[in-house]
Amino acid sequence: MIKLNLENAFVSEKQINSYRKQIKTIHNNIINRKGTGSKMLDWIDWPDNYYEQDFKNMVQKNKELKKLGVEILLVIGVGGSFLSAKAGIDFVLGTNVTETKVLFIGTDFSGSHIKQIESKLETKEWAICVISKSGTTLETSLAFRYFRKLLINKYQENHFKYVVAITDVEKGILKEIAAKENYFTLPIPSGIGGRFSGLTFVGLFPMLFAGINYKDVLLGASKSCKDNLNPNLANNDAFRYAVTRNILSKKLLFYQRKPRYSLEIFTIYDYDLLYFSEWFKQLIAESEGKNGKGIFPVSAFNTRELHSLGQYLQDGQKIFFQTTLWINEDFEKLFIEAQENDDDNLNYLAGKSFHEINTKAFNGIIDAHANIGKNPNIIINLKNRSAEALGYVWYFFFISTIVSSYLLNINPFDQPGVEIYKQKMFSLLGKPK
Amino acid sequence: MIKLNLENAFVSEKQINSYRKQIKTIHNNIINRKGTGSKMLDWIDWPDNYYEQDFKNMVQKNKELKKLGVEILLVIGVGGSFLSAKAGIDFVLGTNVTETKVLFIGTDFSGSHIKQIESKLETKEWAICVISKSGTTLETSLAFRYFRKLLINKYQENHFKYVVAITDVEKGILKEIAAKENYFTLPIPSGIGGRFSGLTFVGLFPMLFAGINYKDVLLGASKSCKDNLNPNLANNDAFRYAVTRNILSKKLLFYQRKPRYSLEIFTIYDYDLLYFSEWFKQLIAESEGKNGKGIFPVSAFNTRELHSLGQYLQDGQKIFFQTTLWINEDFEKLFIEAQENDDDNLNYLAGKSFHEINTKAFNGIIDAHANIGKNPNIIINLKNRSAEALGYVWYFFFISTIVSSYLLNINPFDQPGVEIYKQKMFSLLGKPK
Repeated sequence: MIKLNLENAFVSEKQINSYRKQIKTIHNNIINRKGTGSKMLDWIDWPDNYYEQDFKNMVQKNKELKKLGVEILLVIGVGGSFLSAKAGIDFVLGTNVTETKVLFIGTDFSGSHIKQIESKLETKEWAICVISKSGTTLETSLAFRYFRKLLINKYQENHFKYVVAITDVEKGILKEIAAKENYFTLPIPSGIGGRFSGLTFVGLFPMLFAGINYKDVLLGASKSCKDNLNPNLANNDAFRYAVTRNILSKKLLFYQRKPRYSLEIFTIYDYDLLYFSEWFKQLIAESEGKNGKGIFPVSAFNTRELHSLGQYLQDGQKIFFQTTLWINEDFEKLFIEAQENDDDNLNYLAGKSFHEINTKAFNGIIDAHANIGKNPNIIINLKNRSAEALGYVWYFFFISTIVSSYLLNINPFDQPGVEIYKQKMFSLLGKPK
Repeated sequence: MIKLNLENAFVSEKQINSYRKQIKTIHNNIINRKGTGSKMLDWIDWPDNYYEQDFKNMVQKNKELKKLGVEILLVIGVGGSFLSAKAGIDFVLGTNVTETKVLFIGTDFSGSHIKQIESKLETKEWAICVISKSGTTLETSLAFRYFRKLLINKYQENHFKYVVAITDVEKGILKEIAAKENYFTLPIPSGIGGRFSGLTFVGLFPMLFAGINYKDVLLGASKSCKDNLNPNLANNDAFRYAVTRNILSKKLLFYQRKPRYSLEIFTIYDYDLLYFSEWFKQLIAESEGKNGKGIFPVSAFNTRELHSLGQYLQDGQKIFFQTTLWINEDFEKLFIEAQENDDDNLNYLAGKSFHEINTKAFNGIIDAHANIGKNPNIIINLKNRSAEALGYVWYFFFISTIVSSYLLNINPFDQPGVEIYKQKMFSLLGKPK
């Protein structure tokens, strides 16, 4: 499903192999749940041990919404409760779906964002899927208050049928509201953190509504678990990716009076993968960005960004390496047609697909950036954009990220820095104790 | 219109003043067009000396399109020929307009992107605005071939009325096609580069179609020219911003075994400013990212990104400073309403607007990042999101960027690194000579 290409990564097999002992220890710690933060490792065997009854209920509820004539599902959540579903649906089905059928809000305090989403709901039948572990995240709960009121106005005493609440199993204000109002609920497993929750109901329910077979997603994750938890560094691409990142981030370039590689430019070539990059950024930034450490994740959508960031990537400070997620399959099969008069001189491309052109651009860029720009380039080749591939690649990045974090002696599972601004904000807002 | 706040920038007035002599020289070089690349400085007095007849023609053509019943303008362009118009319209009118009335394509080779745009044109009356200096940029010219064919199918022999070509005055393949087909054209002035072209027809025609008064944009730029080309460093905020960036990018933190500040996180708090950040990134990356130098520009949309990048910004490597573009005016005036049972405990916020909540979040974040995270924070306060403010702030960033570049001894106006991948790509595609 995945093939890691390190040809242009400027890292040797010898360097990679020198990590064998460390990797062995880390592998043991993961498998036996002995590493820091291991209580949040429940996703490790989740694809094979999920809550069967809840899945049945989920399928049932989705059918019910369709029967009610619901055209749009409005997902209210932020962080992993936004990015997993958005990235997942765009990846498998394309952005058309998340512009028309599954919308997202509750990510910010931008009033114009709320008004824009509201305008898309007019004249439509719609339902809410609110996702929050505690129910106290302010972006999400304010948007829920706003759109819940609209929903009540629209469906009156029947509005409860149009709400799905995905929340903590045991406690929290969202759970209380859902119980009181008789909203359908799905659990957020307590041992799985936000950025790792795409394979749970948090990602899978919105995907199911969009038309994605969640069983395929879980199957892909399950296969990835087998491949990428294999202890042998030599044929474990998730481990090899993590080790390569670690080597690059440690490369000291002080002799050139320049800083080391501290940025990873995560690069994609498909409009539908824009939010996959955002998903990646959260995974890396929250897992690794601690104790003054971590690689800073940046995204680039090529070839668009070659006309903005491209100049810097070619000639700017050598402070980054680039990781490209390349999809082998031609998703759209859209072809350049011949034109009778060829007044734009493009007939030499007639018969080629846009995917082929994109492929040549990609090859040209790797050549330009690696061989001339002298920037390390990692390539992750992914077979296609199926639901199975999504589950596989998510799980791949989960594993590589926790290995990367453990290589930095960091707990991959907490995010203590996120709380600080919230405390400051709530204090300025005069939140009652 | 703009107020620069350096309270949390960790830079002293003494440090800033030490640049006085350098700034005097740079100011002289700009005014007298003696600096490197000065032949591309035609935008300096453009707001007061634009081509009057072309503007009259532009207004006339816009009226004609409206009379034809055109509902959607499809802008085909990349880099500055995409970002200026997209950023500008979102800034003044909001993203609703660029999701329904002015669409963009020609930025990449993603087939699904093209199909998505095509689906939005179905059942609509639409026109093309193709923007390319030479007409040979492949992303743009392929998209033009694709949508031009659809347009010809739709309007047959009248299709020429539905095309606006913005291109070089004298030469190029797009100019030839336009002449042959009798398309209406507008000139790209030869002394203004792509990333500085928002104030020319490149930005102004799509904005006019969207409903923005281009005279207000130019008025703002003209005011900004007066304010931000004043030679006195002490009360020139564009210069002070450039100097602050330079000081921060040079701060050597090697004693902490850490690299210097080499990233600028450009931060906004409004969904409608997402592409303003992208516009900023191009301006900085292409102007400064040369000869192994330059600050790497990164964008963050708060508070959304606090739930992804936030952890890193608080606790990760101290390799960045943050610049926030904050809009003082409440654009939407959307208020939190009280709720009878207060089951979500949010009534303490009733009566406040989302903008007020956003303001408190912003204040909380600056406190958390600057005082606890110890990261330098620059704040650019902008009065509002009027067309005038847009012209003003664009011009502000133009000036600060060329000053920043000159402080690094870099030509702000060229982009030699962008050509390399193109050569590689064209060679792989077998382009005829």
